[in-house]
Amino acid sequence: MSDRRTDPRKILAEWGVKDFRVIDREAISEITLGASILATGGGGDPEIGLLWTYKVIDEGKEILMVDPMDVPDDIQTASTACLGAAIVLTEKPPSGEVLNLAMERLEQYLGRPIQATIPLECGGVNSPVAYAAAGELGVPVIDVDGMNRAFPELQMTSWVTHGVHCSPTVSVDSRKNVTVIDTGDDDVLAETLARRVAMAYGGISWIATYPLTGKQVKEASILYSQSIAWAVGRAVMRARMQHLDPISELLSSLKEERGVEGYRVFRGKIVDIRRDFGSETNKGFTLGSIVMEGIDDCKDQMATLDFQNEWLNLRVDGEILCLPPDLIAILDSETGEPIRTDIMKYGYRGTIVLIPAHERMRTPKGIEMFGPRHFGYDLDYVPVEGLNEHRR
Amino acid sequence: MSDRRTDPRKILAEWGVKDFRVIDREAISEITLGASILATGGGGDPEIGLLWTYKVIDEGKEILMVDPMDVPDDIQTASTACLGAAIVLTEKPPSGEVLNLAMERLEQYLGRPIQATIPLECGGVNSPVAYAAAGELGVPVIDVDGMNRAFPELQMTSWVTHGVHCSPTVSVDSRKNVTVIDTGDDDVLAETLARRVAMAYGGISWIATYPLTGKQVKEASILYSQSIAWAVGRAVMRARMQHLDPISELLSSLKEERGVEGYRVFRGKIVDIRRDFGSETNKGFTLGSIVMEGIDDCKDQMATLDFQNEWLNLRVDGEILCLPPDLIAILDSETGEPIRTDIMKYGYRGTIVLIPAHERMRTPKGIEMFGPRHFGYDLDYVPVEGLNEHRR
Repeated sequence: MSDRRTDPRKILAEWGVKDFRVIDREAISEITLGASILATGGGGDPEIGLLWTYKVIDEGKEILMVDPMDVPDDIQTASTACLGAAIVLTEKPPSGEVLNLAMERLEQYLGRPIQATIPLECGGVNSPVAYAAAGELGVPVIDVDGMNRAFPELQMTSWVTHGVHCSPTVSVDSRKNVTVIDTGDDDVLAETLARRVAMAYGGISWIATYPLTGKQVKEASILYSQSIAWAVGRAVMRARMQHLDPISELLSSLKEERGVEGYRVFRGKIVDIRRDFGSETNKGFTLGSIVMEGIDDCKDQMATLDFQNEWLNLRVDGEILCLPPDLIAILDSETGEPIRTDIMKYGYRGTIVLIPAHERMRTPKGIEMFGPRHFGYDLDYVPVEGLNEHRR
Repeated sequence: MSDRRTDPRKILAEWGVKDFRVIDREAISEITLGASILATGGGGDPEIGLLWTYKVIDEGKEILMVDPMDVPDDIQTASTACLGAAIVLTEKPPSGEVLNLAMERLEQYLGRPIQATIPLECGGVNSPVAYAAAGELGVPVIDVDGMNRAFPELQMTSWVTHGVHCSPTVSVDSRKNVTVIDTGDDDVLAETLARRVAMAYGGISWIATYPLTGKQVKEASILYSQSIAWAVGRAVMRARMQHLDPISELLSSLKEERGVEGYRVFRGKIVDIRRDFGSETNKGFTLGSIVMEGIDDCKDQMATLDFQNEWLNLRVDGEILCLPPDLIAILDSETGEPIRTDIMKYGYRGTIVLIPAHERMRTPKGIEMFGPRHFGYDLDYVPVEGLNEHRR
C-alpha cells in the first residue's frame, strides 16, 4: 500500500483547494469524543481507533480535512469502517494493515484509486478510522458522514435514502481473508452478507464501502458532520478543563454548530440490563434493553431503553420520549463521557440527552428505512421535538 | 460474455492437441446419468443441468473434452457449480447468464481469462454445468473432477487434500448479486462464507471456483473422472435398452473403466425418513437419515443411512458396511436411476450399491478432511473393501 501512498496536499492543490484543516492529535481526540457522544451508545471503544490514528500522525503522515463543497464531482471516494459487534472488537484490536488491504481490494475491483475518505458514521471507532485510513492512503478526509450518529446496519445511511449504494463493499479480517460484496442497489442484502461474513470471521470485519463520487458525496451525505462532532467534543473537553457542566456545554455547542436544540430529560442509574443473544436475523449485534432508576430531580421515575448496538428508544414512566432516528446519549454527568451498550454495567449513573436527527436522516425514505417500524415498534415516528415540546 | 467467447478447437490447436471428444446430446445425457449415480444421493436434479447443456449444444456452441495429460502447465482453468441445498434448486432453475457472470467476475479478479473448465464433482447438476459453461465460454472441458463423487462441502476435494485451494471463489445469484470470497489457504472458511452467502441469496448460489493452473489440474485432480461417469452412464443406458440388469452392467463398467469392484449389498424399500433442519453450522444442507426394510433376499434385514446432501454411511442390522469417503448409491432396481436425498419418499424401492472412493480421495489428508470423524462418527475409516470382504 505504501507504494501507492499519495500526498493529500498535492491532491488538494490539484483540486485548487487552499482551505483545509490539519488534523493533529488534539483535533482527532476532540472529534472522537464528540463522535462517541453522537454514537448513541454504540460505535465501540474510542481508544481503539484513536491509538491507531495517533500512530499514523506520529509517523508523519498528514491528515487533512476538506470542505465537501470544495471536492470535484468526478473523484472517487470511499468509506472505511469496522462492522460487527463492538464487544468483540475490544478483544480483537485492529492493525492498519487490514483497512489498507480492504481499500486496496476495493480499488482493484473498481479499477480506480480512492482519492478521499468519507467517515461512515459518528462512532468511537469508525470516526477516527476514517482519518487513519486517509493518513495511510495519503488522501484527504471529507467533512461529511452518512448518519451524523451511529446505527447498527450498513444500509442505514443518508446515502442509501438519497439513492446511492454501498456496493461494492470489501470485507476483510486480520488473517487477510477478503470478501467482495456487490449487490447492486440491494443494500439490505449487502448488510445481510456483510454481517454473515463478519460472524464467520469471528465477530468482526473491516470494510471498505460506499464508493461514492464527489458529486454523490455532496448530494447525499450529512454535510459538515465532522465539524459537528468536533464542536461537541471540544465543548465537552473544555467543560472538563474548566469544571463546567459538560451537558450544558454540549447542548450549547449543538445549538451553535447545528442550530438545533437538544434535551436533557433524565438522570438516573442503571438497575437492570437484559442482554439478548439474537436470532438468526440479528446475530452479530449487541442487543437488549436496560432500566434506569431516576435520581435527584428524577427520583421515583423509571426510564427504559432498548438497544441494537445503539440506543433505539427511550420511555420514561411508560411515556415515549425518543424514537429512531433521533439520537439518545447517556452521559456521565461529571465528565460527559458516553455510557456504551457494549460495556455498561449495573449501577452506572448518567444523564440522558436527546438530540434531533439530521434533516437528511428524517426524509420519508429515512423514516421507512430506520424509523420506529423498521426496528419492530408499532409506532409512527414523531420527532423528538414533538415528544418533548413541554420541555422548551 | 459473448464478446470474449473463444473457439475450443482453436485453443486445442494452440496447445497442439489433436485428440479430443465432442460432447453431443447423447454423450452429455450418458455422462450426466453416470455422474448422478456416482453422486451418492446428492448432486441435484439432472434435468436442470441437462436442459441448459442441450440448449448450449443446440445453439451450435461446441463442447470438447480433452485429456488432462494434454493440457499445458501454465493455462488458467476454473470450476463452475451450484452451491446450496439441492431441494431449493428445483424451485429456482438457473439461467446460463448467472454462471457466465460468475466466470466473468472470477476472470476480472484473477486478471486473466479462463482457458478450460474443470467439473467440481459428479452430480446431476454440477457435471453438466461444467460442460455448459465450457460451451458458453468457448473453451474445452478437462476429463477430471475434484471428487469422482458428490460431497456436501466445497473444500472436500482431492484438490484441497493435494494442496491447492478454492480461493478466490465468486458466488452469484439470479438477481446478479456478486460475492467474491478470497480466504487464501483457508478452504473451510471459504466453504462457511460461500454457504452463508448462498443462504442469504435464498438457499442457492452459482459459483466460479478452484482457479487452478494446468499443472495443478494434473497433479491434484481425480483424473479421467468424466470418462468413468460416462462409462457408468453408458452401461446403465444400454441395460435399459437391452432389458439387462442395470446394477450388473454398472458394476462391470466400473471394473472395466476404473479396475475396481463395487458391491451390491441390499435391496429394500424406504420405511422411514427423518429430515433435520440443521443447526447454525450446517444450515444450507439437505440433512437427515432414512430406514430401509429389506425385500427379496434381504427380507428381515434393516438398513439405515444418514445423509448431508449425500449419503454418508450405511448400516445393515447395525453392522457398518460403508463409511465416507466411499460411495453409496441407492438405485432403482429396474432402471438404475438413483434415488436422491432431496426428493426420496416413503415407499421408494431400490438396490444399495457401494463403490470404493478414488485413491486420491483416500489419502491420510483426505480421510482427515472427509472421513468418518469429520462427519461426527466416532469411528476409524475402514475401506469399503474391508467392510465387505465376505461378499467377494
